[in-house]
Amino acid sequence: MMKRFEELVAEIKKLDSNLSDKDFLLTWEQSKDELDAVLNVADALKELRENNYSTKVFNTGIGVSQFRDNSTRTRFSFTSACNLLGLGLQDLDEGKSQIAHGETVRETANMISFLTEVIGIRDDMYLGAGNEYMKEVGAALDDGKKQGVLPQRPALVNLQCDIDHPTQSMADLAWLKENFGSLDELKGKKIAMTWAYSPSYGKPLSVPQGIIGLMTRYGMDVTLAHPEGYDLIPEVVEVAKKNASESGGSFTQVATMDEAFVGADIVYPKSWAPYKVMEERTVLLRNNDQEGLKALEQKCLAQNANHKDWECTEAKMKTTKDGEALYMHCLPADITGVSCKEGEVADAVFEKYRIQTYKEAGWKPYIIASMIMNRVFKDPAKALEGLKENGEKRITV
Amino acid sequence: MMKRFEELVAEIKKLDSNLSDKDFLLTWEQSKDELDAVLNVADALKELRENNYSTKVFNTGIGVSQFRDNSTRTRFSFTSACNLLGLGLQDLDEGKSQIAHGETVRETANMISFLTEVIGIRDDMYLGAGNEYMKEVGAALDDGKKQGVLPQRPALVNLQCDIDHPTQSMADLAWLKENFGSLDELKGKKIAMTWAYSPSYGKPLSVPQGIIGLMTRYGMDVTLAHPEGYDLIPEVVEVAKKNASESGGSFTQVATMDEAFVGADIVYPKSWAPYKVMEERTVLLRNNDQEGLKALEQKCLAQNANHKDWECTEAKMKTTKDGEALYMHCLPADITGVSCKEGEVADAVFEKYRIQTYKEAGWKPYIIASMIMNRVFKDPAKALEGLKENGEKRITV
Amino acid sequence: MMKRFEELVAEIKKLDSNLSDKDFLLTWEQSKDELDAVLNVADALKELRENNYSTKVFNTGIGVSQFRDNSTRTRFSFTSACNLLGLGLQDLDEGKSQIAHGETVRETANMISFLTEVIGIRDDMYLGAGNEYMKEVGAALDDGKKQGVLPQRPALVNLQCDIDHPTQSMADLAWLKENFGSLDELKGKKIAMTWAYSPSYGKPLSVPQGIIGLMTRYGMDVTLAHPEGYDLIPEVVEVAKKNASESGGSFTQVATMDEAFVGADIVYPKSWAPYKVMEERTVLLRNNDQEGLKALEQKCLAQNANHKDWECTEAKMKTTKDGEALYMHCLPADITGVSCKEGEVADAVFEKYRIQTYKEAGWKPYIIASMIMNRVFKDPAKALEGLKENGEKRITV
Repeated sequence: MMKRFEELVAEIKKLDSNLSDKDFLLTWEQSKDELDAVLNVADALKELRENNYSTKVFNTGIGVSQFRDNSTRTRFSFTSACNLLGLGLQDLDEGKSQIAHGETVRETANMISFLTEVIGIRDDMYLGAGNEYMKEVGAALDDGKKQGVLPQRPALVNLQCDIDHPTQSMADLAWLKENFGSLDELKGKKIAMTWAYSPSYGKPLSVPQGIIGLMTRYGMDVTLAHPEGYDLIPEVVEVAKKNASESGGSFTQVATMDEAFVGADIVYPKSWAPYKVMEERTVLLRNNDQEGLKALEQKCLAQNANHKDWECTEAKMKTTKDGEALYMHCLPADITGVSCKEGEVADAVFEKYRIQTYKEAGWKPYIIASMIMNRVFKDPAKALEGLKENGEKRITV
Repeated sequence: MMKRFEELVAEIKKLDSNLSDKDFLLTWEQSKDELDAVLNVADALKELRENNYSTKVFNTGIGVSQFRDNSTRTRFSFTSACNLLGLGLQDLDEGKSQIAHGETVRETANMISFLTEVIGIRDDMYLGAGNEYMKEVGAALDDGKKQGVLPQRPALVNLQCDIDHPTQSMADLAWLKENFGSLDELKGKKIAMTWAYSPSYGKPLSVPQGIIGLMTRYGMDVTLAHPEGYDLIPEVVEVAKKNASESGGSFTQVATMDEAFVGADIVYPKSWAPYKVMEERTVLLRNNDQEGLKALEQKCLAQNANHKDWECTEAKMKTTKDGEALYMHCLPADITGVSCKEGEVADAVFEKYRIQTYKEAGWKPYIIASMIMNRVFKDPAKALEGLKENGEKRITV
Repeated sequence: MMKRFEELVAEIKKLDSNLSDKDFLLTWEQSKDELDAVLNVADALKELRENNYSTKVFNTGIGVSQFRDNSTRTRFSFTSACNLLGLGLQDLDEGKSQIAHGETVRETANMISFLTEVIGIRDDMYLGAGNEYMKEVGAALDDGKKQGVLPQRPALVNLQCDIDHPTQSMADLAWLKENFGSLDELKGKKIAMTWAYSPSYGKPLSVPQGIIGLMTRYGMDVTLAHPEGYDLIPEVVEVAKKNASESGGSFTQVATMDEAFVGADIVYPKSWAPYKVMEERTVLLRNNDQEGLKALEQKCLAQNANHKDWECTEAKMKTTKDGEALYMHCLPADITGVSCKEGEVADAVFEKYRIQTYKEAGWKPYIIASMIMNRVFKDPAKALEGLKENGEKRITV
């Protein structure tokens, strides 16, 4: 009974993690043990819930979300994660706040944190800004705690920035672990992270960057493919190269989706905007240059349209490992004939893997909850054991 | 001590209800025992709360609301119902989501449900669409549970669709039961569901349809009255006829408010738009035809203005049973001289029954909470007993 | 262990407070014992939380917020206060409600309150309206409770009206008590509540009015300074005079910031609009006269610009008691060179006291929670003891 839970707790105890002392903003800033801690705590929370144990480590306290871009699944994942741990939610809606009055980041960070256990931020629209903003918030929280303004240092969770999307990539990793049986099984597996055509523009770079930055840590053969001109941020590509060489995996760049797919165990076809375009767009957004933004959109859509053959079709899937590579997506996908006329993936391919992409997404609430627990508790294994010992039920009757 | 609670639980145990296996979208899709189960569980929850028992059957979990039309009392009722059972709330605001990106209903339904116990939907603007949408969501949730995406099948609550408004009509029924002492007392009572004049247009049909569809189940003499051209959906009128013949009540249609009021025990005067207009409006809304919508509004307001005599006045109330029929309304009412120049009801009439309409509305949070419990628990009587046995207090000190 | 908590509870027991029978809308409507009750209960809640006791006096129930003006810190304070006591939150967003349909205040007040323990309202834009609105809501809640519509009478908390800002001024007082060691220490201390230049207009009068109305109760020497024409509401100035004469303090009005600062123990430099302007603005807002509002803004900004020397500079601070007066602000401050070109306070002054202003703000969630407890519980000391006896932990593992 609860054997898997006990095993996970035992695993967590063996890890050397310092996540209680630092924020989880980019996966490559964390050690392997710290990534494993997040995976295992997520898994253990899932075990507890599925065995009807209450996972409320907090009796009171709030979680704060700040979305600077639209969101459905991350919003619900964050709310669910907070709720899973016993926290109430308060959204920081900048339109309804006094932030427009020129309030400083360090002040707002403290004002929203007096009784707060976690702040989750999505800020992915401005290249060079999102991650910086989060670091500024984190520094303000550190100072607030140190100076006695805040009775606790809230966890800070990156719900997607300009550089990384760690709750997504870690949920993807948890799903791969579940699907293939273990992290060890991922070694030597080929994952094709490829650009795909979409009739929209300006999609963030954080997902492909997150994938190449994380999967290279696990000895995987990571292949990146995109049309000319759709480069990712060069620094992140360097990170992927370094990771691969350290983990015994590989990082390869190829020029076509076809090459990337050949023999792949896993494919992740997804659209994004070139980082040069994101840079240009950042300037236009900052200047609120509506004309310029429209012109840029037109230019980019025309550019995208040259690459409509970058679609994940049944034919391409046949070239993967046994014709049965695992298809992944962060959702929502642009599905040809369903959500758009021509898109990232053929209807038949998506339909075959649809349920699996849902399961992939289902890890996100647990990953976020785990990130909170790893930040708040010096000994998350002990906290998990405490939940089991308390024996409070999730469904109480 | 808690005698009434014990009696209610005993009643519930006798019922043959399958509500844990199906959604509560239209009252006429449920058996009489299932309607009784909802009424009795609502009543039992109210008893528990009033005796300071905690009614938290969930320690964690969220309720999701999706309002495709404005709402005050239903929004607050849904939030209160979720809170009463221990659930946190997350609103699905389509404007802040990625739903506009062409995401499918089946996908969204799963994405918002990983740790969700109930989804409440209001979708009453588009004739032929609201109920269909809810069924689509329900099917997606069924599939998600079956395929292992969702660890639980969230309850789905119809917070008003194009056809029925079951949380309203069931709250109305609970109020009638309270007011007249029992469901048996309702047999043979005459209820006049009549159109009334309002200086606005496009009010949904779901309330009058809900009333004639439900009250005919309880042996009541249901009389429907409206000006020529203000027909309800024909299929629902057929349902009412069939119900009446089965329950030993009656269903009568008359041409004037005066005829409907004569000898009535209960009057429910309320404005609505003709279903033909709602059909026309649905097309215009779908085409976002603002000019067409304005023209339709003008035409309808002019048509309404021909029927200003359809007002619930003191003179008309005198013609009811002993001049003392119970006045009902789902609120807010258009009160002559208060909320508009000329409206559905005279100020003096509304004022006399104002507190009673508030009590009528007060049942809604309990009805919604009951619908959730009946969907989630195979044995809601046992769950209620569990709450009493646990003995946790609502106010803890 | 928990000695301070025990002392606070003992203090509360000695007080003669009737706050469970009346709303806390203006500080000068409360007795000294009632103000002390709010301060001490706030402090005791803080002690409990800091010693990891759960402060959930409610197992279920909701708090309702209604913000008729933008807000960050008050919104978060209210949410945190509700959460601290175990309440969920539901915002009443008038844009998403049916209130525009001409629904009456008394009806809405009841409709949102069936399972509600507190309603917090910010309504500070319309002079002569905010406080009136709150009293109307309070009367409707009284009636709803009396008539059996509401099972409980929700607490009503003034989150800022046209006259007073009691959650701010009481948080300020709690901070002064903490900073100077006790309320007795405040006797004879000089506090300079002065107007300050800001490049914006229409700031509410409630903060300066709240400060002169409250601090005069505690034997302080309250000095009010503003340029000619920036008068506060005359009735509130009379209240301050009366309070000072009763408490053994003083209330003085001077014509310059310089005079006010000389020898001050505490300075509170903050911009506001003249009440005559607020009256004019109220009429324009009511008429939705956009042209008139723009013209008024221009006139006022020009008028403000004549008083740019009303800045809290290092030079002015040197003239205060030992050059070390405590600087206070309700935040966000208009800081010269930080949030605006020229503002209320010099960067160096604000920076020196920044952390202290944050600590000042940190009292607000506890003050609001205390106001709720004092309204809901006839014997808040007993409720606090109950929390300690229950012994439930805030962090449960």
